[in-house]
Amino acid sequence: MGSEELNRVVVVLVRARNPNNIGAVARAMHDFGFRHLRIVNEYAVPFETARSAVDASEVLAGAAVFASVAEAVADCTLVVGTTAVGERALQHPVYALAEAGEKIGAELGGEGRVALLFGSEKTGLSNDELSYCHWLLTIPMEKHEEVRHPSMNLGQAVAVCLYELVRGESSVVAGGVGVPASAGEVERLTVLLTEMLEKTGYTKRHPANCDEAQIRRLVLRMSVSAGDAPVWMGILRQVLWKVREGSSDSE
Amino acid sequence: MGSEELNRVVVVLVRARNPNNIGAVARAMHDFGFRHLRIVNEYAVPFETARSAVDASEVLAGAAVFASVAEAVADCTLVVGTTAVGERALQHPVYALAEAGEKIGAELGGEGRVALLFGSEKTGLSNDELSYCHWLLTIPMEKHEEVRHPSMNLGQAVAVCLYELVRGESSVVAGGVGVPASAGEVERLTVLLTEMLEKTGYTKRHPANCDEAQIRRLVLRMSVSAGDAPVWMGILRQVLWKVREGSSDSE
Repeated sequence: MGSEELNRVVVVLVRARNPNNIGAVARAMHDFGFRHLRIVNEYAVPFETARSAVDASEVLAGAAVFASVAEAVADCTLVVGTTAVGERALQHPVYALAEAGEKIGAELGGEGRVALLFGSEKTGLSNDELSYCHWLLTIPMEKHEEVRHPSMNLGQAVAVCLYELVRGESSVVAGGVGVPASAGEVERLTVLLTEMLEKTGYTKRHPANCDEAQIRRLVLRMSVSAGDAPVWMGILRQVLWKVREGSSDSE
Repeated sequence: MGSEELNRVVVVLVRARNPNNIGAVARAMHDFGFRHLRIVNEYAVPFETARSAVDASEVLAGAAVFASVAEAVADCTLVVGTTAVGERALQHPVYALAEAGEKIGAELGGEGRVALLFGSEKTGLSNDELSYCHWLLTIPMEKHEEVRHPSMNLGQAVAVCLYELVRGESSVVAGGVGVPASAGEVERLTVLLTEMLEKTGYTKRHPANCDEAQIRRLVLRMSVSAGDAPVWMGILRQVLWKVREGSSDSE
């Protein structure tokens, strides 16, 4: 993986609690040549403690803090969540890390920017946070009978994932589907579709299909390209215009 | 890697100084299903602190302490040292981790027992300790200009090495990506979408986007699954119903 590709990988820590873990993540990023760390946290991140991480000061100094997952991944074309399988009923495709690494390599071989999301040490990623992900990756772990939470240590999990990305070096050539839409565009599409579902009465009629996360996943599964995103937005806006016009006529 | 093969891998920590690191190593071993931890140390190992490692109590309880590398690896048929390349003039063959993993797998595929040696956090393995090794493995890391000691965090290094040994095995089943929709369903979607574009006035406004083949390709690029197809049809039908209702109100 070339320097330019490493530069288009973003590690996003969501609700990480332990500053030592943030430091360990930064160190692993530094070791493998990744630069972009983003942190989603409700409260102020205790960077001072994390900064003690050996060798990782540059990564930490450049870390960006966001208030929401949506903002943290807005410029990314592929959003990958990490999960311990079995943690919950999964509604996303899940790939083992080795296979996930190939898919991520292919995305980077194009012009995409990839976000890797890691959840909090205690609870992992919530369903809402997962709903921003195109798919999930899982690190294959031993099944232990006694285990309730089969999650890895955060710093180790990040190290293992980043290692997988650099281990092959074999630059997978991307297929010519075209550049995917960014997460920000996907989010705008989701908002428009949601409004359309409400205004047309679909939400009322099929409430079981319509919680926010479900609609977001439905849109993500469309795998909209950057070229198609404005077309779909135009279509949805036209529908909304027409529905509004219909309503105002009838008033 | 089967349980029996995992059982023939021995992780040897030589002069590890930080009990937290020993705990982290034990946790990584537990996560990936390895059992045999050996510790070479001149002074008593502060196991009590290390034992706090989540989930790793079994590995730590079974850890064996040795006074010398020679004793720690005596029953092993292959001894592999880990090193950061460039650390010193190397007198051993050095393999990148991916290739090393294959060689270790081959040894375990026979009846061999393999020792993986990790040196102290500060200094790595000494020349004397390296002399017990058949060959060395190195984790590929980014070269940073400022770096004097390009070593990884011990717990992360062990996690990455053990991951490489099990990564091939990953028989994780992918969750519900779903069967793709049939061409017939895609065609029905295309017909409904076309009708919606006409009824909402989109066709008139964006004629350049709306020849039949373009709309069909737009739908094909959604890669709709068999599960999502009826959802999208329901949405389009609801829009059509709403638009019709609006029009009849206004007549």
